[in-house]
Amino acid sequence: MKLATLKDGSRDGQLAVVSRDLKTAAIADAIAPTLQRALDDWQFMAPQLNELYDQLNTGRAIRAIDFDPHNCMAPLPRAYQWADGSSYVNHVELVRRSRNAAMPESFWREPLMYQGGSDDFIGPTDDIVAMSEDWGIDFEGEVAVITDDVTMGSTPEQAAGHVRLLMLVNDVSLRNLIPDELAKGFGFLQAKPATSFSPVAVTPDELGMAWRDGRIHLPLRAAWNGKQVGQPDAGVDMVFNFPQLIAHLAKTRNARAGSIVGSGTVSNKDARRGYTCIAEKRALEMLEGGAPATAFMRFGDTIRIEMLDTSGKSIFGAIDQKVVQGEVPVSR
Amino acid sequence: MKLATLKDGSRDGQLAVVSRDLKTAAIADAIAPTLQRALDDWQFMAPQLNELYDQLNTGRAIRAIDFDPHNCMAPLPRAYQWADGSSYVNHVELVRRSRNAAMPESFWREPLMYQGGSDDFIGPTDDIVAMSEDWGIDFEGEVAVITDDVTMGSTPEQAAGHVRLLMLVNDVSLRNLIPDELAKGFGFLQAKPATSFSPVAVTPDELGMAWRDGRIHLPLRAAWNGKQVGQPDAGVDMVFNFPQLIAHLAKTRNARAGSIVGSGTVSNKDARRGYTCIAEKRALEMLEGGAPATAFMRFGDTIRIEMLDTSGKSIFGAIDQKVVQGEVPVSR
Repeated sequence: MKLATLKDGSRDGQLAVVSRDLKTAAIADAIAPTLQRALDDWQFMAPQLNELYDQLNTGRAIRAIDFDPHNCMAPLPRAYQWADGSSYVNHVELVRRSRNAAMPESFWREPLMYQGGSDDFIGPTDDIVAMSEDWGIDFEGEVAVITDDVTMGSTPEQAAGHVRLLMLVNDVSLRNLIPDELAKGFGFLQAKPATSFSPVAVTPDELGMAWRDGRIHLPLRAAWNGKQVGQPDAGVDMVFNFPQLIAHLAKTRNARAGSIVGSGTVSNKDARRGYTCIAEKRALEMLEGGAPATAFMRFGDTIRIEMLDTSGKSIFGAIDQKVVQGEVPVSR
Repeated sequence: MKLATLKDGSRDGQLAVVSRDLKTAAIADAIAPTLQRALDDWQFMAPQLNELYDQLNTGRAIRAIDFDPHNCMAPLPRAYQWADGSSYVNHVELVRRSRNAAMPESFWREPLMYQGGSDDFIGPTDDIVAMSEDWGIDFEGEVAVITDDVTMGSTPEQAAGHVRLLMLVNDVSLRNLIPDELAKGFGFLQAKPATSFSPVAVTPDELGMAWRDGRIHLPLRAAWNGKQVGQPDAGVDMVFNFPQLIAHLAKTRNARAGSIVGSGTVSNKDARRGYTCIAEKRALEMLEGGAPATAFMRFGDTIRIEMLDTSGKSIFGAIDQKVVQGEVPVSR
């Protein structure tokens, strides 16, 4: 099934079931008010939500409404955990090589993962707000899963059973703030502003055979200012699959229901597949010509991230955002 | 006022108001079911909670119950954000010097802060669970604030008005996992297992004159296996105060209601004040004798962290935990 969270003026929004073709939606308030509440008791809630989904797909849902991604918050507008891996190690190696930083061999054997801020996610068509273009505003196209409760010490095999939903991510990065933060060793804080997610989160069965080996075997499409810049296959060159990423996260602690685990920027070794973040394009330019030719995002720029099934239909709906300048808060 | 979250079998527990002397409590269900809900609408909720607090302190509360810290979850059993600073730079310098790592001069000018996991906090008397003593289990005594909504780009002066509650923290660290994670640059993930907090969170006014300059001017007491090992003054050598830490966090993004911001391990330059984490003791031993003499925590060890007011009364109640060995999850 497909689930969305609609804007209703509240912090957590309103849970809705969305039809497979992304055309209609049904408010799920008779089942669960929010997606977090559904995840908190998934075994009980999911069958009821799925029944509503069946009704919606067959035109039997009472009070179906038109589905509009502009009314969407992130499926989880705020979450208790957002842990993002760097599973497409090709991306990591490229970017590091371009700045003459050697990549430890261990990066191929053990996942790299950072704990991200999760208190203020933004919707799929919400603006990307930054104070300055000098921050080096970049998009990052990713895929992510939402888990239910994962017990400390779970193996990848055990973790695999806890993937409940999948989403697309735009893990916006402020590239010019990253070097200083990485040098401190304490991870990203200011370099990772509000993250956005696709209009809907879907259960693994929606992907059919494209969901296998703990990976999504479909291209992730990124279009920057209307121009397609990348369509790497998310199932290719993903060194650590989602069960491995979840097990890594849960090695020393429990991961609780509603934990979002990201793949890192999707990237293929085959450079003809293009890029889903500008940093990678710039890295290639530096390696080829000694200097980057492509600038980061400007105010007014747009970024669209989407994934189509093999018949060309959008699975998650599109992340489609514009970069705008923020305002300095007025003193109070 | 003083607020606690009582265990009731649910994920978020039951909000309760606790008397100033920590002897009685009153369930706040007629006002807000959870602390997060109160923080979501603090201007509306706080006066009502405060009225109940007044009734409780004057023996007028209906259905007052005995307050028992063993029934407490963390004040926020799960939170949307946990960002922990390293504001007692003395601690950072000592630990780095002991392993021959130079500390960048910038650490004195700009806060060091990591994004922590916040989906699975544990209560003040809950066990610290680890799979292996080889992980290097250590306590870390800290103070922390909970904010309401802080807008991106807020100054420290603006941020100061958003401190709603204060707590004590045991930011448990797995020391032997830290070097590898720091070397990766992506921050702490496995090295920081579940964090615990004091039985109650208190509004700043509860601290009277001890809360000034954005710091808590009282000693933080740590007792390891019943022996007092540290009582550094939390108001001394805290290089960045809480408003500065919050402003640092909110530089490129909003920090939403219920964000927890920590001070980092409380540490004074005056070594006679002792230590609130073992790593610091070991660092001193290494600097003096070339090798650490004190081992990290063993299964069965206890740690008690508390703060008394000038008349010797406990403000937050005590964090009082035992280290136990975790069990490998059974396959399913």
